[in-house]
Amino acid sequence: MGVLANMPSTVATIDAVDRAESGRPAEDALTRLVRLVDADLQECNRTIVANMNSDVELIPQLAAHLVAAGGKRIRPLLTLAAARMCAYEGHRHIDLAACVEFIHTATLLHDDVVDESLLRRGLASANAVFGNKASVLVGDFLFARAFQLMVADGSLKVLDILCRASATIAEGEVLQLVTQNDLASGEAQYLQVIGGKTAALFTAACEVGAVVADRPLAEEQALGQYGTALGMAFQLVDDALDYAADQATLGKTVGDDFREGKVTLPVLLAYAAGDSEERAFWERTIDQSEQTDADLDHAMALIARHDCIGATLRRAAEFADQAKASLSIFPASPYRDALVAVADYTVSRAS
Amino acid sequence: MGVLANMPSTVATIDAVDRAESGRPAEDALTRLVRLVDADLQECNRTIVANMNSDVELIPQLAAHLVAAGGKRIRPLLTLAAARMCAYEGHRHIDLAACVEFIHTATLLHDDVVDESLLRRGLASANAVFGNKASVLVGDFLFARAFQLMVADGSLKVLDILCRASATIAEGEVLQLVTQNDLASGEAQYLQVIGGKTAALFTAACEVGAVVADRPLAEEQALGQYGTALGMAFQLVDDALDYAADQATLGKTVGDDFREGKVTLPVLLAYAAGDSEERAFWERTIDQSEQTDADLDHAMALIARHDCIGATLRRAAEFADQAKASLSIFPASPYRDALVAVADYTVSRAS
Repeated sequence: MGVLANMPSTVATIDAVDRAESGRPAEDALTRLVRLVDADLQECNRTIVANMNSDVELIPQLAAHLVAAGGKRIRPLLTLAAARMCAYEGHRHIDLAACVEFIHTATLLHDDVVDESLLRRGLASANAVFGNKASVLVGDFLFARAFQLMVADGSLKVLDILCRASATIAEGEVLQLVTQNDLASGEAQYLQVIGGKTAALFTAACEVGAVVADRPLAEEQALGQYGTALGMAFQLVDDALDYAADQATLGKTVGDDFREGKVTLPVLLAYAAGDSEERAFWERTIDQSEQTDADLDHAMALIARHDCIGATLRRAAEFADQAKASLSIFPASPYRDALVAVADYTVSRAS
Repeated sequence: MGVLANMPSTVATIDAVDRAESGRPAEDALTRLVRLVDADLQECNRTIVANMNSDVELIPQLAAHLVAAGGKRIRPLLTLAAARMCAYEGHRHIDLAACVEFIHTATLLHDDVVDESLLRRGLASANAVFGNKASVLVGDFLFARAFQLMVADGSLKVLDILCRASATIAEGEVLQLVTQNDLASGEAQYLQVIGGKTAALFTAACEVGAVVADRPLAEEQALGQYGTALGMAFQLVDDALDYAADQATLGKTVGDDFREGKVTLPVLLAYAAGDSEERAFWERTIDQSEQTDADLDHAMALIARHDCIGATLRRAAEFADQAKASLSIFPASPYRDALVAVADYTVSRAS
């Protein structure tokens, strides 16, 4: 796809690492983080598998599809690494990292739910109705199970952090729904959406690491700020890739956001920079949801024409810089280095 | 509908009370319970409204559709009355009753997605008005908000009770999904389904009343048993009415369960009692989901022929008796009397 030529040539994201085969430096940050907390992560994975069990067989079956089948585990990794950076020596961070992953998985399952209007547009498979039901209910189970694990941990402070994050995630998701097909909703609401749907759990995942280590409030807040900024960068890159990634090489579907009429930053920037003809195109395809097969390519071309991928990635890089700066109050350690590197890696434009 | 002639003539349920205009004795039990805890209930309603607020306007709008628009409030009433029966004098039961109602409302919103209900309380279901996805996400918000309220209350024991109930509800709902269109799933699984999807929250709602009052474990368990049995009775009656209630007078849609292929007790009993032709009918309509417009009337006629409404209601009455017996360890009080009367009322066949 031609638009890739307009992207910084070495853009790679956490999304890409699962599939990339090459030895690009950008891959090392996450690999290094995983290696640093490998024993913790394996214990966390065992906790995840053990706790998604149920007599009702569909629950572990469907949960395994998302939880046990792998995935980046970026959020639990943050909890594990944050706790270790705070010199925590116990085991509570294992279960709480599993909680974070369960909450994430529940939101993924609920995010899979689509409305009939979308089904009619061919965005979901034939078993989408059964998928809807199962996704909602198994998501609910995982959400409840996450809170059971937190109750067993026994910290009201941790519960407070993750309950608040859960409410904020839901608010972000609802706001995303409300601003869908509405270009006029603008950038401030877009930032609120990604702050809720993505950054809130990154924030909480990091804060929990400081809380189990019983660190001072300043460190808890610093880790929270790291998580928030990292989450913003992470989602901005994700939204950029939806109009730029090469599906064949990254294994990522391009154009989902476009087809759903999501108002993301690349679209907002292209709309703002466009002439009247271009604005009419965006209004038809996004606001009115009237799309033809050729429209995605045209959307990607317009986004490339105005360098909106580049602009979105630069915004992401600013957040990554904020994330790194937040960690400066911590003494140097392999964990701090790894978390700093992950921030760079999220919006990697190195070499 | 002819099948009504086969029902005990004065069957009335809590479902009916919202709309009934007459002065039937059956209405008095719930009215009396409401009157007994009226000040608490009003405070609880204010807590509910205050806590479903959000900057994201769709959230209070959609939540209000279910929460503020009224409804029986049977579950929070149980928490309020149980706490008062246990001589509790504080205010914690107010917020926790609101939590119980939020959890219930979240499951209703998610159930709307699952069941594609067209009518709930005689109104368009939330998902018919706002869409599947909004129902899921606002449900998530209310669920998270419920846990935030519990965290603010600060009792890990209460959190444990309501987290476990939430997981059990989800398991019951998933089992219902799995057993849908499967007559062979049988009565044991049916009882597990309604034990999860309905009785678990009744149980927890009652237990919480004893916990805030710091009563001995025996009383907590007795209240839990009352709630469990009441919830079972409640759902059995609901499932009976789905094949018997007069929609015009009760504002309830008849035949939802049939159309969705839910395997409820009236169907299981009719299937077991039927001859080969009748069993073929049930297999076609329930197992194979092949239904014509005339099939619901025939299903109701078959259920009436074998007195399956009566048998289901008798089963409900047994649970109501268990519920009442569970309260015998408490000293007589207006609250105990009211809770006993509600059990009778749930399956009222008095004249």
